[in-house]
Amino acid sequence: MSELRVVSSCRELVSVIADYRKQGRSIGLVPTMGALHAGHLSLVERSLAATDLTFVSIFVNPTQFAADEDLDQYPRPLEQDLEKLSRAGADCVFLPDVSEMYPGNCTTSIEPPQVSRRWEGESRPSHFGGVCTVVLKLLNLIPADVAFFGEKDFQQLAVIRQMVEDLNVATRIEGCPIVREPDGLAMSSRNVYLSETDREIALSLHRTLASVAEQVAQGETDSHLLMAEMRQKLIDSGVSRVDYAVIADPTTLEVVEEVEGTVVALLACQVGQVRLIDNCVIAR
Amino acid sequence: MSELRVVSSCRELVSVIADYRKQGRSIGLVPTMGALHAGHLSLVERSLAATDLTFVSIFVNPTQFAADEDLDQYPRPLEQDLEKLSRAGADCVFLPDVSEMYPGNCTTSIEPPQVSRRWEGESRPSHFGGVCTVVLKLLNLIPADVAFFGEKDFQQLAVIRQMVEDLNVATRIEGCPIVREPDGLAMSSRNVYLSETDREIALSLHRTLASVAEQVAQGETDSHLLMAEMRQKLIDSGVSRVDYAVIADPTTLEVVEEVEGTVVALLACQVGQVRLIDNCVIAR
Repeated sequence: MSELRVVSSCRELVSVIADYRKQGRSIGLVPTMGALHAGHLSLVERSLAATDLTFVSIFVNPTQFAADEDLDQYPRPLEQDLEKLSRAGADCVFLPDVSEMYPGNCTTSIEPPQVSRRWEGESRPSHFGGVCTVVLKLLNLIPADVAFFGEKDFQQLAVIRQMVEDLNVATRIEGCPIVREPDGLAMSSRNVYLSETDREIALSLHRTLASVAEQVAQGETDSHLLMAEMRQKLIDSGVSRVDYAVIADPTTLEVVEEVEGTVVALLACQVGQVRLIDNCVIAR
Repeated sequence: MSELRVVSSCRELVSVIADYRKQGRSIGLVPTMGALHAGHLSLVERSLAATDLTFVSIFVNPTQFAADEDLDQYPRPLEQDLEKLSRAGADCVFLPDVSEMYPGNCTTSIEPPQVSRRWEGESRPSHFGGVCTVVLKLLNLIPADVAFFGEKDFQQLAVIRQMVEDLNVATRIEGCPIVREPDGLAMSSRNVYLSETDREIALSLHRTLASVAEQVAQGETDSHLLMAEMRQKLIDSGVSRVDYAVIADPTTLEVVEEVEGTVVALLACQVGQVRLIDNCVIAR
């Protein structure tokens, strides 16, 4: 196991990358906001397997949080994160502070693609602009051969894929499967916010998705009926708000009328103080 | 003289670049909209001197034209352009069509930096968004060590410099001096639109700038007085409209109250059917 290299300035990062590039080694990037869980570590493992060098960025990106969101409370267990990355065998962690990523005169941003407008884009209007801007900056700083993102944030993955295609970014984007707790709850850094009661209610997200998949497997193709049932199940389980619960085309994320081929069931709910998302790709 | 290589697809370009990169050769990029004149060729010469391989792109970028602008009439003398590039010794020309650069599903764009809002940004609100988007795409397709832009489009150069800094693009941006006709008119692909009478009136842009520089050399530091005189001189010469005629900080492009250190005099006028811009950097 080589030692984890910690870089916090863009300038140092550029020279580290140049050195590695000269050696002709391929680079994988795992962009994160820290508070690493098994989901993140599965991306690191995938990168270690697929590329010569694995870079992980830890940056709680302020531009993807709205004013009323949890930027300040977002967990930042830095020491544990570094310990986990070191144990996992990552090669380099990029750990910039906010002024390093967004100096005072930094005013350029990305206007994200069409696929950003629905669902999360409706609930969090400025979110994907912030995500696209920081991801593009990271890909310019760390011109990886492959960058790894979790399918948990399904729309984010679709948005980033489209941005990378639209702007001719050379990095290949690879989506990795959702990692779940033993009881089915999708891993999320925000799960730590859940009270014991809310943690129980939160299981309804996964159960609802499993039930949709089951009904499709049994031949149900009426997506409007399935969507109505999804919403009802979530409400019956005690979530405080359903932002959306839809069956959509996996590329455009537009609602499908009928379940044919591959679709994705996407949902977002408020559970107590926490907004949770989950999804399930379903192939007929 | 090596032969000029013509590439029109992004896919081919990526493989051409990969081959050159393996050889460890440095790359210069000169982005143009074609209709090449001595100004463009000075950028090509600068690139040939500074880098191992010179790429020129020719692409009349629709997203930087407003609906009422001259996209359709913009000159496209392709054969002469290729002849000029071949004679100049450029290595590769990238010649995509619109659908290659903007496939139907391409919806991501760049929200340009603050410095884009003034002057040209007021006269042409969507212009710099289009410029930034296409330049970023070109820099992703052709990850040049250096990209060369003319100082004739002074604000464009400032906007691109800021975008590249804000988005951590690795390419260095180099500005090159304005090339002028013997009588002082700044070279522009749009000069061909000028009638004989308008061509005469157009000389007032250069003369007005020369006069400002002269006054500053003689000790005048009151920028508001100088700006009023610029505007009056242009109107007296018969231009049909002055969009702006200002003395500004060369980085922020904000108007300066007093001429101190280095400033830039910037102007844009309508002359007959043609909108012309020109500028002059003045150091006290």
